[in-house]
Amino acid sequence: MKAIRIVRPKEPLEIQELETPKPQGSQVLVKVQSSGVCHSDIQLWDGGYRGPGGQFLKVTDRGIKYPLTPGHEVAGTIDSLGEDAKRFFIKNEKVVIYPWIGEGLCPACRGGEDNLCDKPRSLGVYRDGGYAEYVLVPNYRYIVKLDEDMDIDASATLSCSGLTAYRAIKNANLKPDDNVVIVGGTGGLGLMAIQLAKALTGAKVIAIGLHNNKLQAARKCGADAVVNSNKEDPTKAIMELTDKMGADAVIDFVNDSKTVEADMQFLRRRARLVLVGLFGGEVNLNLINIPARAYKLIGIDNGSIIDFIELISLASRRIVKPVVSNQFKLDQATEALTLLREGKIIGRSVINP
Amino acid sequence: MKAIRIVRPKEPLEIQELETPKPQGSQVLVKVQSSGVCHSDIQLWDGGYRGPGGQFLKVTDRGIKYPLTPGHEVAGTIDSLGEDAKRFFIKNEKVVIYPWIGEGLCPACRGGEDNLCDKPRSLGVYRDGGYAEYVLVPNYRYIVKLDEDMDIDASATLSCSGLTAYRAIKNANLKPDDNVVIVGGTGGLGLMAIQLAKALTGAKVIAIGLHNNKLQAARKCGADAVVNSNKEDPTKAIMELTDKMGADAVIDFVNDSKTVEADMQFLRRRARLVLVGLFGGEVNLNLINIPARAYKLIGIDNGSIIDFIELISLASRRIVKPVVSNQFKLDQATEALTLLREGKIIGRSVINP
Amino acid sequence: MKAIRIVRPKEPLEIQELETPKPQGSQVLVKVQSSGVCHSDIQLWDGGYRGPGGQFLKVTDRGIKYPLTPGHEVAGTIDSLGEDAKRFFIKNEKVVIYPWIGEGLCPACRGGEDNLCDKPRSLGVYRDGGYAEYVLVPNYRYIVKLDEDMDIDASATLSCSGLTAYRAIKNANLKPDDNVVIVGGTGGLGLMAIQLAKALTGAKVIAIGLHNNKLQAARKCGADAVVNSNKEDPTKAIMELTDKMGADAVIDFVNDSKTVEADMQFLRRRARLVLVGLFGGEVNLNLINIPARAYKLIGIDNGSIIDFIELISLASRRIVKPVVSNQFKLDQATEALTLLREGKIIGRSVINP
Amino acid sequence: MKAIRIVRPKEPLEIQELETPKPQGSQVLVKVQSSGVCHSDIQLWDGGYRGPGGQFLKVTDRGIKYPLTPGHEVAGTIDSLGEDAKRFFIKNEKVVIYPWIGEGLCPACRGGEDNLCDKPRSLGVYRDGGYAEYVLVPNYRYIVKLDEDMDIDASATLSCSGLTAYRAIKNANLKPDDNVVIVGGTGGLGLMAIQLAKALTGAKVIAIGLHNNKLQAARKCGADAVVNSNKEDPTKAIMELTDKMGADAVIDFVNDSKTVEADMQFLRRRARLVLVGLFGGEVNLNLINIPARAYKLIGIDNGSIIDFIELISLASRRIVKPVVSNQFKLDQATEALTLLREGKIIGRSVINP
Repeated sequence: MKAIRIVRPKEPLEIQELETPKPQGSQVLVKVQSSGVCHSDIQLWDGGYRGPGGQFLKVTDRGIKYPLTPGHEVAGTIDSLGEDAKRFFIKNEKVVIYPWIGEGLCPACRGGEDNLCDKPRSLGVYRDGGYAEYVLVPNYRYIVKLDEDMDIDASATLSCSGLTAYRAIKNANLKPDDNVVIVGGTGGLGLMAIQLAKALTGAKVIAIGLHNNKLQAARKCGADAVVNSNKEDPTKAIMELTDKMGADAVIDFVNDSKTVEADMQFLRRRARLVLVGLFGGEVNLNLINIPARAYKLIGIDNGSIIDFIELISLASRRIVKPVVSNQFKLDQATEALTLLREGKIIGRSVINP
Repeated sequence: MKAIRIVRPKEPLEIQELETPKPQGSQVLVKVQSSGVCHSDIQLWDGGYRGPGGQFLKVTDRGIKYPLTPGHEVAGTIDSLGEDAKRFFIKNEKVVIYPWIGEGLCPACRGGEDNLCDKPRSLGVYRDGGYAEYVLVPNYRYIVKLDEDMDIDASATLSCSGLTAYRAIKNANLKPDDNVVIVGGTGGLGLMAIQLAKALTGAKVIAIGLHNNKLQAARKCGADAVVNSNKEDPTKAIMELTDKMGADAVIDFVNDSKTVEADMQFLRRRARLVLVGLFGGEVNLNLINIPARAYKLIGIDNGSIIDFIELISLASRRIVKPVVSNQFKLDQATEALTLLREGKIIGRSVINP
Repeated sequence: MKAIRIVRPKEPLEIQELETPKPQGSQVLVKVQSSGVCHSDIQLWDGGYRGPGGQFLKVTDRGIKYPLTPGHEVAGTIDSLGEDAKRFFIKNEKVVIYPWIGEGLCPACRGGEDNLCDKPRSLGVYRDGGYAEYVLVPNYRYIVKLDEDMDIDASATLSCSGLTAYRAIKNANLKPDDNVVIVGGTGGLGLMAIQLAKALTGAKVIAIGLHNNKLQAARKCGADAVVNSNKEDPTKAIMELTDKMGADAVIDFVNDSKTVEADMQFLRRRARLVLVGLFGGEVNLNLINIPARAYKLIGIDNGSIIDFIELISLASRRIVKPVVSNQFKLDQATEALTLLREGKIIGRSVINP
Repeated sequence: MKAIRIVRPKEPLEIQELETPKPQGSQVLVKVQSSGVCHSDIQLWDGGYRGPGGQFLKVTDRGIKYPLTPGHEVAGTIDSLGEDAKRFFIKNEKVVIYPWIGEGLCPACRGGEDNLCDKPRSLGVYRDGGYAEYVLVPNYRYIVKLDEDMDIDASATLSCSGLTAYRAIKNANLKPDDNVVIVGGTGGLGLMAIQLAKALTGAKVIAIGLHNNKLQAARKCGADAVVNSNKEDPTKAIMELTDKMGADAVIDFVNDSKTVEADMQFLRRRARLVLVGLFGGEVNLNLINIPARAYKLIGIDNGSIIDFIELISLASRRIVKPVVSNQFKLDQATEALTLLREGKIIGRSVINP
């Protein structure tokens, strides 16, 4: 089979001809039809990222090995099944893969939250992923069926960008009388979060973004109000939109120094600040405010498989609709990553092997 | 009646002769027998505290007015009752007061959490409190009966130091297989938290403190392990005590720059960091870690009245035992506050009018 | 002021001229503009209801006294305010009343759930209610503001029929991949529950009713499927609609022997059966099934004041729309109750004093 | 290897010589050292049980097949490991097995609750269990390490009787000011539940049983009060012990017509009635009471693997201590089951192959 792999950090990805795996026991081989291209793939390609103080944090230090086939947002069809998996699936069934596979023995895994495993074994990160013609899934538990009429590219993106947005909404613990501010509400995750908040919570949704045309998209997804932080002071705008009470919850999909500093200015007492983005940086936190104002800061790293099932159910009934903007061939993976890094991708792009 | 009041910030408190209030409607007049002396009373006396960047934050800016009778940890007996309160209590009944009174109309109050009110009206803070012979309580809802054999001084301290410790334990969401690190585990709140964790959660408890003799007290309260952070590196010690996994939860009753920076070094993935103390300062937070390691930071500001009822029930059955170390007369209030500020009070002191 | 009162059970209600109350302390006097007519008002009028084994259970045995002004779904305007209430409201403000007032000292009240008080003091049940020109509310806490453009009759019905439906939906604990069966889905509570399930949960909604024209209304409110239990076997229909898995949750707004026996036939393992209706009767429960199939049976008696606030927020934004069908004058109360008892009211009727 | 198997319902179990399984992939072979003897094994032996109306419900109708090696409470040592399991365990490690294995794809399994699977595959029930020298476990996920100093027999019984008691306590949702009544509080599950309630909840515990000597055991486990229902009316006794309020929660480990009818007489408003026992029968439920008094009835069928981990942690620290009374050899299994059926086993018995 063909796979496009990171052989060494920062060098162009290489197409390699690998032996097609044969599934044993509970394993499943999926023929890849669509594999999403994620910002975190760029970190794998770069071999790490800048941490606090500017030092470079290598991904090999947390157990990632090269050569690696990236790709953790994978949808396709069943190709073949290990003996123990045959009861559950048949060849050619349309499926999507839950990629946030854990080792299985830590408290997170045992509680059904593989995504928070102490020693993660995620697909496309710690084991070969979906930038390939086939991908081997270690257990049928991680396979979820798709309805025949679901869009394969949109479904693929549910595994990471959709799932993270869903988990963020769940953790914001929104009630119908709350307002929620979505920071970075015009990216793929933000637009999904707006749709989910409207479909599931009854809360009032305010989106903050940088460009009017993108904020139009936020409005179409259901935002009750939008704030262009290039044109107006977000704190002032949020205080006005909330009768001077501040935000009951903020979900920050950027999570850099600048946005989090701003967030802290418009939180209502008792507010939840949900931090998602991996842009990073540091923030200087006024410690007395955390207890005195009873804030909660909540970090989100993907969702559990039960979250994933719920999200797919919503997508199958068109209650939420992920936006896919660009499609690439397998041998265009380097190009896809380069365009993403340069900010030239609007929404989510996918690779169709 | 006699009351000892802060007339102007930083000046000695003055004994004043005030008219004894007459309770109307749902109001209740309580004859004070014990009133706890709290660190936050010093902030009222000072007129404010140092915030981030060293600026002085005045308490009058958040609505506090002088002269003020401080004292929010108040136990005593029923003196007299408004017409609507007569069904519920009788003269001379032994009671303790829930002091974290809210305005009543914000979502927190309506959800039973007056302590998190948008516009708090707390006793001894926003209205006259327990450094007096009598205190007027605006509604019988805030009065809780005590068993005849309960110690009046120990019961008084449940209203703030006990209640905050209880709420912190609840929010740490401890499971029997978890370990929890209590930072500042040798103060009044810390010792109460250790007792509560042992009585209610099944978790393993590690106390961090600065003095061996105080750490002995932590052990007596049930700590499974203690760490003297003057003598050993807390991160190294915690990692060893937790099989290199780190803490599932940390409750930091100090909450200053130094302790929180240390806390961040020994959190396990998925950890809850519960911040309680009002010592303040700032911490430089590595933002990418919050989502990547799925941390939760949770600020605690006292507890609800239902928390209070539960705690009193535990105390009435001797399941937890607050430690009271010093007793003062009403006219010694200035002395009591001075000794507390100078760090000469071990545990909690009370005023007995 | 005029009030129409039950003087003796089963006799026509009498219009009486009573002294208009003067609010003291925290009390508020509301000028009634709309007061809903509820099935439970008929129990007050009858003086009781048939319990198991057919014996007549008198309401006076649980503390209800005559003469009584019924009416617990009350909306109107502020007429006058006790001294302590003046900070919060002004004359002529449009408001709705939370009627499920508790005594204030039981664990339910202290946890913010007056509706579950050990010794309830509900408006229109244990104290005079809204079938009158004015109603006295014992504390401003129970008053909620309405937006000027909200319909007064529809708003009144939120206090009981809307609130109960909302609480039922909350307790069904619905996830997006669940299905929920609404039994009695064509009455006022059922139609509200369908709207709420669609607006807040992502679950698939199946309504069971007896008449095709009413089931059309359920479809308009958002039901994904409807079952006419006069024409088809509900168990067979539900099993087909759920891929033979059964219902993840059932909310039964009838709650009589026949419906609950049927419910037990189509529950999925782990299902929640939420029982709401007061029609009563008995059911023979197979005890081994409760643990073996891990069922939960959950009884709902109105909602808390925070539930009420959330529901009003949804109604103010037209996310849910209660249906009011008939309007009566104050002196037509006997007629309104008679028509309701005879099943001649479709939806909810109100009295406009 | 030797296994003692049910070949045909009701006939004596047969010792058979079977081929010792060889673990593949993620499988693990455990050498059995202790296997608990459970009441539900008698149902397997009988081929079914009496349901409502007296009809005999065959276990083959829910997918159980003969010959079957029973035994779902299994502790022992690692014998050999499939390739994928070798990273996690080594030969001779002391372990206990989580037996409530699910198929893996239903919402319960995906949420970490295999015990509530739509199509269970439990060890010793749907697949061969621990009445044998070796048992094959389909995935290393279901293996939990034991400390070297833990008693092997006591540890085995945690898998079912301990786990069920733990789950029941969790679902009773006990607060420190609550009281809880344990019905059947003198059996193995009841005594474990009393220990757990005392160690984890702060609630007051009342045990109901039939014999004074067994009620002494309940007191030793920590019960605050005991009621001998042979000698006094339980309703009267519970009302007296609870200041006439009734029980905040009841956990009924008998769950037959007589006990549940009694339970319904002493529930406080808002009470949780947790039903566990499989003795069965029927109860006539007064439907109006469920909503009017806001009751919850909750069925418990074992616990999840994360519950199991937590319970083992408690047992490893001697916070709870299961009682094992009788030990049998493998060829005495028929005798062990016969004695259990005849009520001659006090506490739990185990088979040591």
